[in-house]
Amino acid sequence: MLHFENDYNKGAHPAILEALVTSNFEGLAGYGSDPYTENVTEQLRELCDCPEAEVTLLTGGTQTNQLVIDTLLAPYEGVIAAETGHIATHEAGAIEFTGHKVLTLPHQDGKLSAKAVASYLAEFYADSNHSHMVYPGMVYISHPTEYGTLYTEDELEALSKICQAYDIPLFLDGARLAYGLAADGAVDIPTLARLTDVFYFGGTKAGLLCGEAVVFTKNNQPKHFVTHVKQHGALLAKGRLLSVQFKALFEDGLYESIGRHALEMAEQLKGILRDKGYRFYLESPTNQQFIIVSNETLEELDQQVAYSFWEKYDDQHTVIRLATSWSTTQADIDALREIL
Amino acid sequence: MLHFENDYNKGAHPAILEALVTSNFEGLAGYGSDPYTENVTEQLRELCDCPEAEVTLLTGGTQTNQLVIDTLLAPYEGVIAAETGHIATHEAGAIEFTGHKVLTLPHQDGKLSAKAVASYLAEFYADSNHSHMVYPGMVYISHPTEYGTLYTEDELEALSKICQAYDIPLFLDGARLAYGLAADGAVDIPTLARLTDVFYFGGTKAGLLCGEAVVFTKNNQPKHFVTHVKQHGALLAKGRLLSVQFKALFEDGLYESIGRHALEMAEQLKGILRDKGYRFYLESPTNQQFIIVSNETLEELDQQVAYSFWEKYDDQHTVIRLATSWSTTQADIDALREIL
Amino acid sequence: MLHFENDYNKGAHPAILEALVTSNFEGLAGYGSDPYTENVTEQLRELCDCPEAEVTLLTGGTQTNQLVIDTLLAPYEGVIAAETGHIATHEAGAIEFTGHKVLTLPHQDGKLSAKAVASYLAEFYADSNHSHMVYPGMVYISHPTEYGTLYTEDELEALSKICQAYDIPLFLDGARLAYGLAADGAVDIPTLARLTDVFYFGGTKAGLLCGEAVVFTKNNQPKHFVTHVKQHGALLAKGRLLSVQFKALFEDGLYESIGRHALEMAEQLKGILRDKGYRFYLESPTNQQFIIVSNETLEELDQQVAYSFWEKYDDQHTVIRLATSWSTTQADIDALREIL
Amino acid sequence: MLHFENDYNKGAHPAILEALVTSNFEGLAGYGSDPYTENVTEQLRELCDCPEAEVTLLTGGTQTNQLVIDTLLAPYEGVIAAETGHIATHEAGAIEFTGHKVLTLPHQDGKLSAKAVASYLAEFYADSNHSHMVYPGMVYISHPTEYGTLYTEDELEALSKICQAYDIPLFLDGARLAYGLAADGAVDIPTLARLTDVFYFGGTKAGLLCGEAVVFTKNNQPKHFVTHVKQHGALLAKGRLLSVQFKALFEDGLYESIGRHALEMAEQLKGILRDKGYRFYLESPTNQQFIIVSNETLEELDQQVAYSFWEKYDDQHTVIRLATSWSTTQADIDALREIL
Repeated sequence: MLHFENDYNKGAHPAILEALVTSNFEGLAGYGSDPYTENVTEQLRELCDCPEAEVTLLTGGTQTNQLVIDTLLAPYEGVIAAETGHIATHEAGAIEFTGHKVLTLPHQDGKLSAKAVASYLAEFYADSNHSHMVYPGMVYISHPTEYGTLYTEDELEALSKICQAYDIPLFLDGARLAYGLAADGAVDIPTLARLTDVFYFGGTKAGLLCGEAVVFTKNNQPKHFVTHVKQHGALLAKGRLLSVQFKALFEDGLYESIGRHALEMAEQLKGILRDKGYRFYLESPTNQQFIIVSNETLEELDQQVAYSFWEKYDDQHTVIRLATSWSTTQADIDALREIL
Repeated sequence: MLHFENDYNKGAHPAILEALVTSNFEGLAGYGSDPYTENVTEQLRELCDCPEAEVTLLTGGTQTNQLVIDTLLAPYEGVIAAETGHIATHEAGAIEFTGHKVLTLPHQDGKLSAKAVASYLAEFYADSNHSHMVYPGMVYISHPTEYGTLYTEDELEALSKICQAYDIPLFLDGARLAYGLAADGAVDIPTLARLTDVFYFGGTKAGLLCGEAVVFTKNNQPKHFVTHVKQHGALLAKGRLLSVQFKALFEDGLYESIGRHALEMAEQLKGILRDKGYRFYLESPTNQQFIIVSNETLEELDQQVAYSFWEKYDDQHTVIRLATSWSTTQADIDALREIL
Repeated sequence: MLHFENDYNKGAHPAILEALVTSNFEGLAGYGSDPYTENVTEQLRELCDCPEAEVTLLTGGTQTNQLVIDTLLAPYEGVIAAETGHIATHEAGAIEFTGHKVLTLPHQDGKLSAKAVASYLAEFYADSNHSHMVYPGMVYISHPTEYGTLYTEDELEALSKICQAYDIPLFLDGARLAYGLAADGAVDIPTLARLTDVFYFGGTKAGLLCGEAVVFTKNNQPKHFVTHVKQHGALLAKGRLLSVQFKALFEDGLYESIGRHALEMAEQLKGILRDKGYRFYLESPTNQQFIIVSNETLEELDQQVAYSFWEKYDDQHTVIRLATSWSTTQADIDALREIL
Repeated sequence: MLHFENDYNKGAHPAILEALVTSNFEGLAGYGSDPYTENVTEQLRELCDCPEAEVTLLTGGTQTNQLVIDTLLAPYEGVIAAETGHIATHEAGAIEFTGHKVLTLPHQDGKLSAKAVASYLAEFYADSNHSHMVYPGMVYISHPTEYGTLYTEDELEALSKICQAYDIPLFLDGARLAYGLAADGAVDIPTLARLTDVFYFGGTKAGLLCGEAVVFTKNNQPKHFVTHVKQHGALLAKGRLLSVQFKALFEDGLYESIGRHALEMAEQLKGILRDKGYRFYLESPTNQQFIIVSNETLEELDQQVAYSFWEKYDDQHTVIRLATSWSTTQADIDALREIL
C-alpha cells in the first residue's frame, strides 16, 4: 500500500529519533523546565527575528488551538474563522467545550478575506443589540489552509491591520507551516511573526512523533500560562519529549529541508495527476492536493493507494486528498505514477 | 411615546399582579416545592393532554434554553438550529458557555425545514470523519419564530419524524407561544406536546413579570433536574413568584385570551401598515410585524413610537419590528394610526 | 402552622408590591436600561458613600455568587471560602460549574479568619509546586454568615488588608445583609463598601419577590458585564421587576426598618428559647437562631412550627434553625411562646 | 548530579525506544486506529483477565484523570478523593475546569478508607438538603498513592462494595501502578480489574516517553469515547506514538521487570536511609520514599542529589521525596550511599 493519505502516517524523521536516543539518559527536569526547552525558545526567537517571543511546546494541534483560543479570549468572546477552518469542522467542538463560539465566515479556497472580517466587525459594532451577541475577540487562520492554499503577504497585512484596528489578536494555525514556507513566493517566518500575535510551528506533520511549538510574538503570552496548560490536561511530565525533538527539528536546516523535500514530491505528484488527466478541486501550492475522482476510480485505487476522503462532490464523484511529506520517497512517487 | 417595540415593556397583566397580592402572606415552601407549582403541573398536563408531562418553572428564556439544551445533550453533542434562531444569535453564546455548539442551517422566514435537517443528519453520518465532528444531538425550533412565523402541523410532523428516526429530541422554544396559538389554523397545544419532546410556555412575553414553564412531554426530564437548575444558578428561593403567576395565567382562559387580544391588535396594526403603504419584510401571522422603512421615516418615528431595530436592509432602509401584546390597547392602535 | 423555617416563606413586603402595582403600566426599556435601575444605582452610591460604585441587579443568590466569582477570577484561579460557606456547601457546585475550585478553610462560627487566609496564601506562594495548583484569586465571606454571625470591623479590616497585600478581591455575600446591619455594633454600609471589592444587598430574604443588588465598589466591574450576565442566562427581559422593587426597598428607610424589625423579633425569640431552656448551638446576633433539640421534641414541633433541619448533632439530637424576617409578626412570636 | 527526584527524569527504556525505531517507517492509520492499538487492547484484556475490557491510550496523567472523571460523571456529580489525592492538589483545577467538584475526605497515609466513604455517602443521602449539594458520583483512589502506599485487597474489596451499593464507579489512578505490583503481597492486576470500574496503567513513570493506558473493565466506556478524547484536545494524530510504546511495554515481561527493578533499588535506598539514621515520614513499600530532613542537611544535598520538595514539616525540617525507577542503576545507589 502506498501512503499518500496524509502527512502523519510514518513515525519520525530519523534525525529526530536520533536526538531522542542520544539524549535518553540525561537526567532532566520535568514540565518544560529543561534546557532543551530554553534552547528551542532561543532558536525560535532567532528564526522569527523576534527577540521577545515566548514559546510553549504542546502535544497536538487541537490541544494547541483550544489552549491558545481559550486563554486569549475573554469569556464573552468568540473566534472568527473560515467556515472550512479546522476549529470549525474537525475538532469535535473543542473550542465550544471551553465556552467559546466559533464565528464562521465564508471562505475562498479555504482562506478568510480581510474584507469579510472587516465587514463582520463593522456590522457587529453597528448592531445596537450587540451586547446580546458573542463579541468577536480573535481571528483564526490556518496557513497552509485546510485546502493547502497560502495567504500572500498582502492578505496577511490586511488581516493584521483589521485586527489591530479592533485590538483583537490574529492567530495563525501552522500545523502544516513547514509545507507553507517552501512554496514559491511564500511569506517567510519573520513576516509571519510580525503580522500575527500568536502562531505555531506544527511538528506532528513535519516529522516529529508529536509536538506543536506555540510562539506568542508580542509579549502577549497569558499570565501563568503553564498553569493554564496543566489545567487543560496538556502539560507533559516529560517535557523533554517535545523539546528534544524540536531542538533537533530547528537545527542544521532540518525544518526547511523537510518542507522543500515534501514540496518537490508534491510538484512531481501534481505533474503526474495533470498528465493522467485528473481534475483538481483547486490549485494548491503545498503538500496537499485535492482531486475530483469518479467513484469507480476510487474503488480501484482503494487496493493500492491510501488517500483521504475529503467530501462528496456529486453522486458520481468524490473529492479526495493526496499528501506528500518529509517521508515521501522518490520510489513512492514512481510507484504512484504506475498506478494512477 | 407609544410602545410597540416589543411585548415586554409593561409590567404584568392585572390578574397576575392580583394573584401575587392575594397569596402574599401565605407561608410557602421554597425552591418550587409549594402547592402552586403542583397546581401548575396539573394545569399543564391537562392543557397538553399529556398526563405524564413533567413541568419546571424557570425565570427567563435564555436561561431556559441553556438549561434544557445543556441537560439533554451529551457533552459531545450540539444542537441544530436555524441560523436566525435566538440561541444562535442573541443569547451571547449562552449555549457555547455550557460547552455545546449551535449547528446552524439556513432558514425560511425564520423556520427550519425537515428536509434541511434530514440532509444534515444523513450527511453527518455518511461522513467517515464524523467522529471528529460535533454530533447533532437535538433540534431547536422557535414557534412563533424570531420573525413571527409559525410552523404548520405538517412541518412539525416532519421534523418530529426525522428526530425520532435519529433518536434525538425536538425542542420547541415557546417564548411567544401565547401569540402563536391564536392565529388562524395554528397548531394546538396537545399537538405541540405530542410532536415535541420538550417545549415551554413563555410567561415573560405573555403578561407575567417573569417566568417560563418548561414541559418535558415524554417522561424525559433529566434526572435530578432541580439540582441541574440550582447548579446553573437558576433556582429561585421564592419559587412562588413563578408558580403563583403561572397558576393565574392558566386559569379561567387568561392565557388564551391574552393571545387572542394581541392578535386582534396585530390584525389592526397590519391593516394600518398596509393602508399607509408600508412594505412588509415578510408575512407574519402573529404579534410581531417586520417592515422595511426608509431611514428618514425612522427619524420621524423616533419621536413618537418606540420600535425595535431589527437589521439593516440597505444603505437607505432598515428593517424594524412593531409588536403588540396583552398590554396593547385600542387607544394605542388608534394613536399609532394617526402617527404613521 | 407557624413559619420560622426561613426568611423567605412569604411573598413581598406590601410597599414592594405596591411599587410594582403603581409602575405596572409604564412602558419601560428592557434588560436593565430602565430609569429605575439608574435610580437604584444612585441610591446605592449614596448609601455606600461610594460615588463610583457600579450596580447590577440580579435575580438570586447562587446566580449572583456564580457570576461575580466567575467573572472576577482568571480561569486558573479559585476562591477561598470557609468550609461552611454557602458556595462550598449548598449551591450544587455552581462555582465548579463555571470552572473554579472553592478552596475551603476551617471556620469559626461560620467566619473565616484573616489569619487563616494569610497562612494559606503565604504557604501557597512558598510551595515550589504552586504553578501546578489552583491559584487563590479571591476571598469570599458571607455577612451575616450561614450561622447568623457577623464580622467585626477589625476582622473585615484584617481580611481586606491581606487581600490587598495579594491583590485579590474580597467579596461579601450579603444575601442576609439587611439582618446584619441592625445588630448592636454592626459594621455600617459605607465601611462594608470601603473594605470590600464587591458585595451585594440581598433582596430575596429582605422582603422582595426576588433580587440581589451587586455593588462593585472599586471601579472594578468586569468589562461588558451585561454580556456576561446574558451569557450566564441571568439577564431578565423585564429588568423592571428588579429595579422597581429595589428602588422601593431603598426608599424612605424601608430597608433599615425591615432589618430592625426582624432583629427585634429575633431578640424576643431568643428570650423565649432561653426561658424555655433550649440549648443554643452558637450565639447569633442576627435573625437566624440555631438550637440543639432532641429528636422527640422535634417530632412534637413538626405539627405546629415550620423550622429548618440544619445538621445532625448526635444520634439523639438535631441542630435546627428558626428564623425571623420582615414578615414575622408579634402574633407569630406570641403563638410560638405558647408552643415551645 | 544524582537523580532521585522522581521517576520521570530520564527518557525511555531502551526497549521502548527500539520499538519506536523499528516501527518508524510503517505506514499506519492515525488517531488510534492502527493495529498496534488493537494489539495493546488484546494484551491488556489478557493481563487483566477481563475479556471485555475496553482500552484507550492517552498521553498524560492529568489528561487521563480529567477525561475519565468528566466523561463518567453526570454534570451535577463530583468525585470523592482523599484530600491528598493528585486530582485534589496538583492538577491545577483540571477537574473543576470540566465542571466537577472534588469532594475531599481525610486520608490515612494517602489512602481513602471505605469507612470514610461509606459515612460520607450515608450522610449525604440522609441530608434533606442534598438536592442543593454536589452528588457524589465516583470514588477516585491512586495506587500506589501520592505517598507511595498501597491498598490491600481487603481495602479495595471494601471500597468496591460501597461503590456498588451506591452504583457509582471506582476509579483507580495507576500512574505508578508498575511500582505497586512488585511489592510484597501487592494486589495483582486481575484483582484490580475485577474490583475497579476503570483504572490505568501509567506509562510515563514506567519507562515510556509518555502514555497512560486506560482500561474500562465493566463494558462501561462512555459512548463515542474517541470524540470525547478529541473534544478534550487529547487525541494524537500519531496514535502510534502511544500504541507502539505500550505494545513493547507489555511484551516479554518488560512491565513487570521494570517494577521489580525499581523496587529492588528502593529496598537498597531504604536500607541506606535507615542505616544513616534518616527519619521516614511514613512507611512506603514502593518506589517513592519520604524522609524528614533538617534544612541544613538539605542545603548540603542540593549540590549532589536531585530530590523533590514535598512539604514543610516544621520551621527547621522539610519532607522530601526520593524515588527510584526503571532507570535507577546500582551505580546511582552506590553513589548515593557515599553522599548521604
